[in-house]
Amino acid sequence: MKISDIGEFGLIEEIKKLTKKPKGAVGIGDDCAIIECGDKELLVSVDALVEGIHFFEDVNPYLLGRKSLAVNISDVAAMAGIPRWCFLSLSIGKGVAKQWIDSFMKGFLDVAEKYNVYLLGGDTTSSEKTVINVTIIGENKKGKSIKRSTAKIGDLVVVSGMIGCSFAGFKALKDNIEGFEWLKDKHLNPKPMVEEALKLKDIATAMIDISDGLIQDCGHIAKSSKVGIELFWDKIPFCDTDIATEEEMLCGGEDYQILATVKSDAILPDGFYVIGRVVEGEGVVLLKDGKKVKLKDCGYRHF
Amino acid sequence: MKISDIGEFGLIEEIKKLTKKPKGAVGIGDDCAIIECGDKELLVSVDALVEGIHFFEDVNPYLLGRKSLAVNISDVAAMAGIPRWCFLSLSIGKGVAKQWIDSFMKGFLDVAEKYNVYLLGGDTTSSEKTVINVTIIGENKKGKSIKRSTAKIGDLVVVSGMIGCSFAGFKALKDNIEGFEWLKDKHLNPKPMVEEALKLKDIATAMIDISDGLIQDCGHIAKSSKVGIELFWDKIPFCDTDIATEEEMLCGGEDYQILATVKSDAILPDGFYVIGRVVEGEGVVLLKDGKKVKLKDCGYRHF
Repeated sequence: MKISDIGEFGLIEEIKKLTKKPKGAVGIGDDCAIIECGDKELLVSVDALVEGIHFFEDVNPYLLGRKSLAVNISDVAAMAGIPRWCFLSLSIGKGVAKQWIDSFMKGFLDVAEKYNVYLLGGDTTSSEKTVINVTIIGENKKGKSIKRSTAKIGDLVVVSGMIGCSFAGFKALKDNIEGFEWLKDKHLNPKPMVEEALKLKDIATAMIDISDGLIQDCGHIAKSSKVGIELFWDKIPFCDTDIATEEEMLCGGEDYQILATVKSDAILPDGFYVIGRVVEGEGVVLLKDGKKVKLKDCGYRHF
Repeated sequence: MKISDIGEFGLIEEIKKLTKKPKGAVGIGDDCAIIECGDKELLVSVDALVEGIHFFEDVNPYLLGRKSLAVNISDVAAMAGIPRWCFLSLSIGKGVAKQWIDSFMKGFLDVAEKYNVYLLGGDTTSSEKTVINVTIIGENKKGKSIKRSTAKIGDLVVVSGMIGCSFAGFKALKDNIEGFEWLKDKHLNPKPMVEEALKLKDIATAMIDISDGLIQDCGHIAKSSKVGIELFWDKIPFCDTDIATEEEMLCGGEDYQILATVKSDAILPDGFYVIGRVVEGEGVVLLKDGKKVKLKDCGYRHF
């Protein structure tokens, strides 16, 4: 059997089945694992960025360094945690110059400084192509991390900002379209929404960051929480550009906005948009002018 | 400038200089970072295994899975900690079959079970060549982790078992020599010395695991502790084989024995060998029949 026959999520599901339920911790199935730590809990996540998949040889190393840490910080934000420490494992491709590493590290450490995250260790090896692995550790008061599995029927679905700008920027880059620098920046230099997530900490019932795409990440909440989600197309704050279609923006990943469910009577902080609600059933239903809309397969597939 | 001009340790040293001193944690410079956690401390380490560098396409995936976790557990053992949780980031090379992953995971999880370590998460991506990143988290009572930087002049240098078997096994494998299965097993299926390290927890002043090779790892203790180390060639328990020379065994890595310094009046548990002493000065001096011996450059270099 090929790995593509089961896909990335199938593979993770299989591995999850093989693992034992941990003591003093919550394991596979959310943006971060949770480890008990006195009156606190630690949030831990690991992400890989692979040359030829997530970035290419001609990438700006400074921006890649920024993004490598930013997307991991976003995983801590996705559970309403505070990012604290990180580890960097750099497998450095043949032909990478010292200057490239210097720029990469500057980007990485600039983001670390901005978010008060300390680099505590890691590994450096040579390799055929460059592979970057970042481990992030965040913290929270005990029991205060917001999971993706706890949405309740009747909750509202909210998002912290525009959807699809990263995909539009990716398209501009891929098709060599001049200009659109602000969109390209959204794709190349994403901002983890740490403070935005914290604004929801007392009203959110479930939370995730939008890395796989709005539809797919709504699907993660729905599946984990064993509920359905209805999204109102007309309420979604699509990115203000026509370089990508709304359909593409619904499916494109890497916006790193916070997607959450909140109690229906909650007072929403400024800057958030109500885009749907949690209903009985399963999966994500998209409503446009009151009618169900079907989208083709959404989200990036690794295998 | 090329990365090879400064080498792996030079690169780590440079990155260390760029990073800020963390609060509530001890960062780069030991087998694990230390994070405060109530009345405990967590030990965290990250290691990469890269196809074409650490293993080759024809590797037995079950044994690779075992080794991937075992060497990380050894990093926790190296500070007299208890391994608890791990994360696995698998970047899976083109053409790797599902069956390969199944065998790899079986090996990984067999070792996890043996050492009571729980897999809490990770990442799966595709890539050109397979790269395996493991993050291990161990724990200890607060202040009880043994660092490499705290050896004192007058201490004895001890080791938990035979030196050079892994290198001898590697040689047998590389040169396609038949037999020598027990040596090949030492290289392919290393045992982390968690219990052995714990036996020293009340008498060790500094500790490390032998991953880079006896001479190089003695050098790490010497440099971090700002002391010199004298090793007595005749006291070293060399691996019982003539497939590799004693010189090679002194430099070959991956034995994963515990190397420690202990107080000179300590009562040593069974199974440990006194092989040297901590002296004023710097670096490692090897004494054979009372005379200083010079070895050529020891240990594996990545760049």
